[in-house]
Amino acid sequence: MGETNRTEAFSDGVLAIAITLLVLDLRVPARATLNGSLAHALGQEWPALFAYVTSFLVIGIIWVNHHAMFNLIGRVDRVALFLNLLLLMCVAAIPFTTALLSEYLTSAANGRAAAVVYSVVMLAMSLFFSALYRYVAHRPSLLADGVDPAGVRGSVRRFSTVGLVLYGLTIAVALVSPIACLALHLVIALYYCFEQTSSRFRSAE
Amino acid sequence: MGETNRTEAFSDGVLAIAITLLVLDLRVPARATLNGSLAHALGQEWPALFAYVTSFLVIGIIWVNHHAMFNLIGRVDRVALFLNLLLLMCVAAIPFTTALLSEYLTSAANGRAAAVVYSVVMLAMSLFFSALYRYVAHRPSLLADGVDPAGVRGSVRRFSTVGLVLYGLTIAVALVSPIACLALHLVIALYYCFEQTSSRFRSAE
Amino acid sequence: MGETNRTEAFSDGVLAIAITLLVLDLRVPARATLNGSLAHALGQEWPALFAYVTSFLVIGIIWVNHHAMFNLIGRVDRVALFLNLLLLMCVAAIPFTTALLSEYLTSAANGRAAAVVYSVVMLAMSLFFSALYRYVAHRPSLLADGVDPAGVRGSVRRFSTVGLVLYGLTIAVALVSPIACLALHLVIALYYCFEQTSSRFRSAE
Amino acid sequence: MGETNRTEAFSDGVLAIAITLLVLDLRVPARATLNGSLAHALGQEWPALFAYVTSFLVIGIIWVNHHAMFNLIGRVDRVALFLNLLLLMCVAAIPFTTALLSEYLTSAANGRAAAVVYSVVMLAMSLFFSALYRYVAHRPSLLADGVDPAGVRGSVRRFSTVGLVLYGLTIAVALVSPIACLALHLVIALYYCFEQTSSRFRSAE
Repeated sequence: MGETNRTEAFSDGVLAIAITLLVLDLRVPARATLNGSLAHALGQEWPALFAYVTSFLVIGIIWVNHHAMFNLIGRVDRVALFLNLLLLMCVAAIPFTTALLSEYLTSAANGRAAAVVYSVVMLAMSLFFSALYRYVAHRPSLLADGVDPAGVRGSVRRFSTVGLVLYGLTIAVALVSPIACLALHLVIALYYCFEQTSSRFRSAE
Repeated sequence: MGETNRTEAFSDGVLAIAITLLVLDLRVPARATLNGSLAHALGQEWPALFAYVTSFLVIGIIWVNHHAMFNLIGRVDRVALFLNLLLLMCVAAIPFTTALLSEYLTSAANGRAAAVVYSVVMLAMSLFFSALYRYVAHRPSLLADGVDPAGVRGSVRRFSTVGLVLYGLTIAVALVSPIACLALHLVIALYYCFEQTSSRFRSAE
Repeated sequence: MGETNRTEAFSDGVLAIAITLLVLDLRVPARATLNGSLAHALGQEWPALFAYVTSFLVIGIIWVNHHAMFNLIGRVDRVALFLNLLLLMCVAAIPFTTALLSEYLTSAANGRAAAVVYSVVMLAMSLFFSALYRYVAHRPSLLADGVDPAGVRGSVRRFSTVGLVLYGLTIAVALVSPIACLALHLVIALYYCFEQTSSRFRSAE
Repeated sequence: MGETNRTEAFSDGVLAIAITLLVLDLRVPARATLNGSLAHALGQEWPALFAYVTSFLVIGIIWVNHHAMFNLIGRVDRVALFLNLLLLMCVAAIPFTTALLSEYLTSAANGRAAAVVYSVVMLAMSLFFSALYRYVAHRPSLLADGVDPAGVRGSVRRFSTVGLVLYGLTIAVALVSPIACLALHLVIALYYCFEQTSSRFRSAE
């Protein structure tokens, strides 16, 4: 149980740092080389702002769902720790993929490549999240007391399928339009925000 | 309750990282291109130092008040988590708006635009803070045990009005003088520091 | 006991920040100076990705083992805090050594020097880890209740020997091939991930 | 009490981030512009390494003493939170002063100015630390249960005097030799590491 607490604290740390590092992608136009007004220069940076808001909500929702999942977990073993680490590795890469996508969002030649990279990392994150969720769902000894294993397994199935389909779809959209792809990621984040993952499988405290 | 603990821990993480990232706005003059003495070059950087101190206190006071608000909260739901996330998104942007304002503080042409951006993000932060506070204040089931809902609602009204008026005022001042605007933000931070938000509505422990 | 909790929290913070700062080593190719396609430019950055994945797992495994070691510790004194600080100093340097190795991984002239620096910092980390582990293992008053001192001391011996031999070996390999050296670090991280350090010496809770 | 916990967690966060951001001062020599061997270029960077080790230990020792002080504190009020915030503001500036000193450590013209800035920030940190310590020491209602106020006040006097004298001395040494000044900071950190601040005033748990 202490083990879960410290795993959650470490995961929270990585998530909080990754979400806050996103701000480094918002760049201040250098005063010495500014052409025209600052207002105009900032207006040109709308892709960076769009990507900042989207990635912030995505990581925020990952945190909310990570949190909900760990409410169901009572103990972790080495495999669970390793899967969690791979999940965090993808999340920690998001400030990079966000910077990449905001740099190339309006590029006709390279915008699609940037959007594919962004979406592939999200899909990988989703796959590791599902793998971890599935792993603990099939080991009742790892579940918290009072959690119904059958209910969790059903939740895992829905959660995994939805994630796989949605993030797979973003890759397809990335090949058509980087801007539509980023907008879809924003919609998915908002969807996940209000979708109730798993807390209903928790018995009353 | 565990839910609140982890929400507070995640929020503390974002606040602690945002406040510490402010230091990246203090730039070391490159030795190779230094004109004149280092003391003189550092003296030229007073806008960065002024902005660093102000934003540090602003984020510090946000933390103090966030802390005081969460002392009144017993449980969070998805909407509260989402409002908290939007609040954190504004706070995490402060290292960017701080760098922007310190770069342009003394610019006759663009200082006002930078000060408006700085102040608008603060106003947005204040609005999300008020929205979260109001949301939980009107849902007694989300309040901690022993907290008087009527007292909290009164506190929300005063807190929201003061924030809206003060941060609205900074936008007006930004249009006149960026330096006066930054000074006003410093004064507001000091005011909030010693203003007692809400702990009086907490019953004795 | 509170002392151990706060030491673990501080260590977790440093580990979580160091692991997340690794992402700063992944650089976005500047759009203005891009030669050829983005896909090609990202493909050229495979050393940075290889180094990112390896160092992420290395720090992750350090966290797992640090966690397992602190499960055995009940109290810390000033010497233990100091040894832990030296351990963290090495871990906090890993984003630098990772950036160094990814920059020079394919350099015929300087790749070996970069790999030696990377491996020496890992060896130093391992030595401070072993020193801390050994220090508490020989002071039963610092061990948690219900922990068998003799069992811990045996674990320390195996753990220290394996770390010394493996990280010493990476220095030797660094002198031959930087790429083989980085691959060996990845293998070591995977080995440590599934090797059970010490939790078997913990009595049932 | 919960208040103290969250204050400690926030402080730990800032301290952990500031200590880990020090690594950003270690710069990777760019491969494209490297003159001579990498080993030689890294050897030229000894001031950065020297400053990294010193500042890492300084912040580490601040954490240890902050920790020891908070073991004596049971409750915090707004003034204590504000003093703690000013203390953290100085600590968060250390990655900047460290970068400044390592850039100018070997500069005949500007090394002293950089060393003075480094030492003045340390002195300011020490003054805010003493002010906070003194503030709580004179308010028995803020001390933890079982702590002897008279003993704490004696400890505050010694602690404050030593800090004031030592950090005042580093400013004087900075005016003579930046390298000697940095070495003195390292010695002070090691001294504070093994000096027992206050835990003896804590009654047995």
